[in-house]
Amino acid sequence: MTLPAEFGLIARHFAPLAGRGALGLGDDAALLDPPPGRTLVLAADAMVAGVHFLAEDPPETLGRKLLRVNLSDLAAMGAVPLAYLMTTAFPRGVTQDWIAGFAAGLALDQAEFAIELLGGDTVATEGPATFSLTILGHVAPGAALRRVGSRPGDDVWVSGSVGDGALGLLALTGRLPPDPHLADRYRLPRPRLALGQALVGLAHAAMDVSDGLVQDLGHLARAAGCAAVIEADLVPLSDPARLALAADAALLPRILTGGDDYELVFTADPASRAAVLAAAGTTPATRIGHIEAGEGVRVRDAAGRTLDLQATGWSHF
Amino acid sequence: MTLPAEFGLIARHFAPLAGRGALGLGDDAALLDPPPGRTLVLAADAMVAGVHFLAEDPPETLGRKLLRVNLSDLAAMGAVPLAYLMTTAFPRGVTQDWIAGFAAGLALDQAEFAIELLGGDTVATEGPATFSLTILGHVAPGAALRRVGSRPGDDVWVSGSVGDGALGLLALTGRLPPDPHLADRYRLPRPRLALGQALVGLAHAAMDVSDGLVQDLGHLARAAGCAAVIEADLVPLSDPARLALAADAALLPRILTGGDDYELVFTADPASRAAVLAAAGTTPATRIGHIEAGEGVRVRDAAGRTLDLQATGWSHF
Repeated sequence: MTLPAEFGLIARHFAPLAGRGALGLGDDAALLDPPPGRTLVLAADAMVAGVHFLAEDPPETLGRKLLRVNLSDLAAMGAVPLAYLMTTAFPRGVTQDWIAGFAAGLALDQAEFAIELLGGDTVATEGPATFSLTILGHVAPGAALRRVGSRPGDDVWVSGSVGDGALGLLALTGRLPPDPHLADRYRLPRPRLALGQALVGLAHAAMDVSDGLVQDLGHLARAAGCAAVIEADLVPLSDPARLALAADAALLPRILTGGDDYELVFTADPASRAAVLAAAGTTPATRIGHIEAGEGVRVRDAAGRTLDLQATGWSHF
Repeated sequence: MTLPAEFGLIARHFAPLAGRGALGLGDDAALLDPPPGRTLVLAADAMVAGVHFLAEDPPETLGRKLLRVNLSDLAAMGAVPLAYLMTTAFPRGVTQDWIAGFAAGLALDQAEFAIELLGGDTVATEGPATFSLTILGHVAPGAALRRVGSRPGDDVWVSGSVGDGALGLLALTGRLPPDPHLADRYRLPRPRLALGQALVGLAHAAMDVSDGLVQDLGHLARAAGCAAVIEADLVPLSDPARLALAADAALLPRILTGGDDYELVFTADPASRAAVLAAAGTTPATRIGHIEAGEGVRVRDAAGRTLDLQATGWSHF
């Protein structure tokens, strides 16, 4: 009896990624003994070609981006990654080489983040390639970072640099000059797992920046019933982003609202500044503003004037 | 600050489905304290409009089908359902009414199966509606039913009736006369959770029939390094399926290989026949053949002749 092609595809490309509990991807479900005494942390994100990535993006980075946007959600909760399940809807014309590249990227990141594939599904679609990934991690009971918890007077911090992903998309689509750093930041987020774990017990609230700094900080502020103020000059930029902004000041709204950052934005007591920097270790962490009474997010320039940002984030509908 | 439409959509349609650990779908991830001392069972399945369901299927049954094909995977492992995460890629023109129907179906099944939504993602697609769901359940350590474990001489059993889903698809697409029972079986699988749980310690091997009885029983046989024999006359058929087959004997291969059954096929010692029937309780369970030395799956008619079935299952590629 000849097996359908999808079984060969799974055996060739995905079975090598499977952890012990995946039972070789040969059963109806996977088995996992969760770490005793820990709370599980779970998130799921989907990516569609042409919406969340470019159809011409190299397959090697696509699987990694899918994994990393989910790992970034774990980072935002202060969790330790454990395993993942993934469903893939490939266009019918997909080649074995393309899938091999996709799987090779996943293998790299499984090693980097010490996680394994538990299971999933592989189907065909007449539409764009569509991927969905569910990530599992764990934290000590009661220790998870949350979006709620900021207080007036808190510092607002952000990790790494802001705007690279959004500018990278512009560079990859010909709206900015080609730039390998920015392109790489668009294609390959850096989930701030070590920082998130180190912030447990220190940050009052945290989340990852996926839909734009202004919009996402707005979620933190709203969860606390407060307002947030960002000092534009304090927002950390990479050298390529700084150069792009120097050439075209109109890029600032894109940097602050464009999304695809996958940095952590978090709040903490001003008395904790030294502790936050010590916890961050080698991960850059920058104070960019504060929480105050009120509502909404204001971005101020060096002269104290409020900037008008038209678009506040990325919306799918 | 106006929130993007997707937040309103999630708040309106999906937040009411969210369990306590989902944190109102307002954080980056969900929290779950797994049942102490139990092994988690996890599966993920994707469905694409035009491939796994008909674009004109009512939204009320689509969410339920998505949930139930995953619940069927838990049933196959003997697991108790716990919670799920779901990602939805809606075509841009989707209406609020359509999503409301989709969510209403999920709400019905959450109540029926005592499960809750933990999290997920809602995105837009230029292609067909595409859904992915990850289900979590649990079993006692070491108790999960597996595909491996059948022995020569074992009985082969199947739950419920075979072929209704495949014939239902034909009826819904005008290739068979309209039939409410068959259409319903295509749109709304019956995950055999109680049976699966009752078979723990009794069945030697089990799986759910999603890709066709012959192909899926082939997986069980291969996992054991054995062959399986099906007596065609013993395969349980619903009255509508029996009538359709009486009108067109050429439907038999479709019944045996068409898929979308979501019944359990399992093997057990012939000495356990009474125990299997007792465990099945009100769930129909029928002996349809046996395991023997060799390889592959043979289907025999009442005269002992081997039937030639061209297609052996559903393949996506």
